[in-house]
Amino acid sequence: SSYRGTDASLVLQHARSMSSVSVPPPKCLQKTFVAPRRHMFGPGPSNVPPRILAAGAEPVIGHMHPEMLEIMSDIKSGIQYAFQTENNMTIAVSGTGHTAMECAIFNAVEPGEGVLTAVNGIWGERAAEMAERIGAKVNSIVTTAGGYFTSEEIDQALAKHKPVLFFLTHGESSTGVVHPLDGIGDICHKHNCLFLVDCVASMGGAPLYMDKQGIDILYSGSQKVLNAPPGTAPISFSERACQKVFNRKTKPVSFFLDMTWLANYWGCDGKPARIYHHTAPVSAFYALRESLAILAEQVTLVWFLNHDAIHTLLDRNARLPTVTTIVAPPGYDWKEITSYIMKNHNLEISGGLGPSVGQVLRVGLMGGNSSKASVDMVLEALRDALRYCHKSKV
Amino acid sequence: SSYRGTDASLVLQHARSMSSVSVPPPKCLQKTFVAPRRHMFGPGPSNVPPRILAAGAEPVIGHMHPEMLEIMSDIKSGIQYAFQTENNMTIAVSGTGHTAMECAIFNAVEPGEGVLTAVNGIWGERAAEMAERIGAKVNSIVTTAGGYFTSEEIDQALAKHKPVLFFLTHGESSTGVVHPLDGIGDICHKHNCLFLVDCVASMGGAPLYMDKQGIDILYSGSQKVLNAPPGTAPISFSERACQKVFNRKTKPVSFFLDMTWLANYWGCDGKPARIYHHTAPVSAFYALRESLAILAEQVTLVWFLNHDAIHTLLDRNARLPTVTTIVAPPGYDWKEITSYIMKNHNLEISGGLGPSVGQVLRVGLMGGNSSKASVDMVLEALRDALRYCHKSKV
Repeated sequence: SSYRGTDASLVLQHARSMSSVSVPPPKCLQKTFVAPRRHMFGPGPSNVPPRILAAGAEPVIGHMHPEMLEIMSDIKSGIQYAFQTENNMTIAVSGTGHTAMECAIFNAVEPGEGVLTAVNGIWGERAAEMAERIGAKVNSIVTTAGGYFTSEEIDQALAKHKPVLFFLTHGESSTGVVHPLDGIGDICHKHNCLFLVDCVASMGGAPLYMDKQGIDILYSGSQKVLNAPPGTAPISFSERACQKVFNRKTKPVSFFLDMTWLANYWGCDGKPARIYHHTAPVSAFYALRESLAILAEQVTLVWFLNHDAIHTLLDRNARLPTVTTIVAPPGYDWKEITSYIMKNHNLEISGGLGPSVGQVLRVGLMGGNSSKASVDMVLEALRDALRYCHKSKV
Repeated sequence: SSYRGTDASLVLQHARSMSSVSVPPPKCLQKTFVAPRRHMFGPGPSNVPPRILAAGAEPVIGHMHPEMLEIMSDIKSGIQYAFQTENNMTIAVSGTGHTAMECAIFNAVEPGEGVLTAVNGIWGERAAEMAERIGAKVNSIVTTAGGYFTSEEIDQALAKHKPVLFFLTHGESSTGVVHPLDGIGDICHKHNCLFLVDCVASMGGAPLYMDKQGIDILYSGSQKVLNAPPGTAPISFSERACQKVFNRKTKPVSFFLDMTWLANYWGCDGKPARIYHHTAPVSAFYALRESLAILAEQVTLVWFLNHDAIHTLLDRNARLPTVTTIVAPPGYDWKEITSYIMKNHNLEISGGLGPSVGQVLRVGLMGGNSSKASVDMVLEALRDALRYCHKSKV
């Protein structure tokens, strides 16, 4: 036993310590945890395939071991492929999609600068709130939930407000909109403005070309089409974005998300030595790498096409292929429907979010979940729910 | 196959999309990743036992499914036990120790308020930098690396600077110091100041009693004594801290780390409904819960005593039990020693960090790694290295 050799004085000293222990070990932790097996057909997280779970369960090594730096380099390449970008400044943030959203705004904007956000659901509102918190002057263009913006509307708003950053959500998972991107980058650049795009819910499931579409900052999440556990977030900065990010007058409010530090940690700053910044989520990076490896095994045509073909089976309006919004069946309580399906079919679909609460059901079929078998399962569950749930409850 | 039913126009439309693909799938992702098996005896991450890795590989469920809320409740209880606190406002941050550090400072401090940090290694410097970035007036008391502060020094500095927050590192992993805590909480409160303590490197390995020691905000990390993968960070706020945190005039700079939102997400605000805030790192929470369950299986006496007994075998100066600093052997290049040991013994020990670079070797024996067998392994590796590495290289 490891207690041999402990001398008596030490035991006494700790016996004294022991008398200070007043909070007992909690009984709830005595239960063995086994996660339920579920069809994750909500807007995310999606089902994580065994191959990615297994990668995440490989033994933990050091956050700066050579093998880890190689994994980070692989992740960088994988994100460049997924984003269709050659940007050197491409990394994964050690956090969720929200962390990446803050990383983008914290680094690109200084206090007092103008930010314009396009609001057609919850994400534009959250970006506005984040920018306000760091002292930016925030304006928003707003359209009805489910709507999107024309290039003319964006052009006019940029001319009026002259922001340094324009935020747009590519895949509005709260309303099921995939926003057109072509041409908007050019409009932003005409107004000397950076183009920031949230592709958390769309990346890998809808056509997206960071470089060709002139996107300056693009971020996503791991738990949607990539089918990795939540907790890591791809992000990339164009040359134009880097010019602004690395020539600030003030430091970003967050040390943890400061791209000057992160660029070094990810080997993107050309300096020979990596300086310790933070301890990366090693296991989550293993899983993210594996999810990108799976994406890279498919030709791009397939991942887009597959999502669109599947989506078309549910919704013919050519909207967001990854998360399909279905008008909530009139006369039913949507919560009863989703609960019924969870209980009887072991399957998650979700209600609305933000402006779409009560209006829609949301079905996410992302990555490996994007198959005709999944669609059939969802439709059968819905049919069953409509039969057994109470009508005229609302 | 899932492509049946795809109509021709869709195929054409995507064939056009396909012509936009210019970044090919990266070859580096074709390699299967297998993590090397290593003895992780540096200052962290520590070895993650199979039981925790397996918990982290359970299937991912939704971040707001009832089972997930139960896991979060279990985690809360586990942290209360580990911290020896009855604080209701006890959660895990969805990020690393640095994220928790920012969470503490962002929520407790408003722009223009005073912060005092105790600097006896790298962590006090980082806390100062974080507080400066959000516009706090920061003062520091500084002592030599390896030193610590007397209650009188702290009392005088608090009287002089009148900060709203005093930051102290319990386990200074860069210098191997475990800072005395008794009495400092009372001194802080006498000066109407909150007492913030970093216990990332010490929690579970050195006696620590949040409530009895009058600590107002305490945070740790998952990858040290808890032996979980890095990426989650326990944090707790006293009633006194909550009074300040929830009565701010300004919003914290980070939406992601805003305790008003996090308190709701963790069910700590007494409100019946949980509002979607962010997608928690589900798998990392599984692993954290399991690591806390393992901690709770041991009586407190054992986890402290074990670390101290093991530590005593290496270092008789009664310093930080989890991370032992060893004076770098004179005449040797420390990098050659750590590289030799990594290469020939498959074992990580580390050099210094910050002020201790070049001065020390750091050996971390945390959680399951805290055994006499590990000590023997380290000593044998060191003996071997001193025999084969080149003397007089520096």
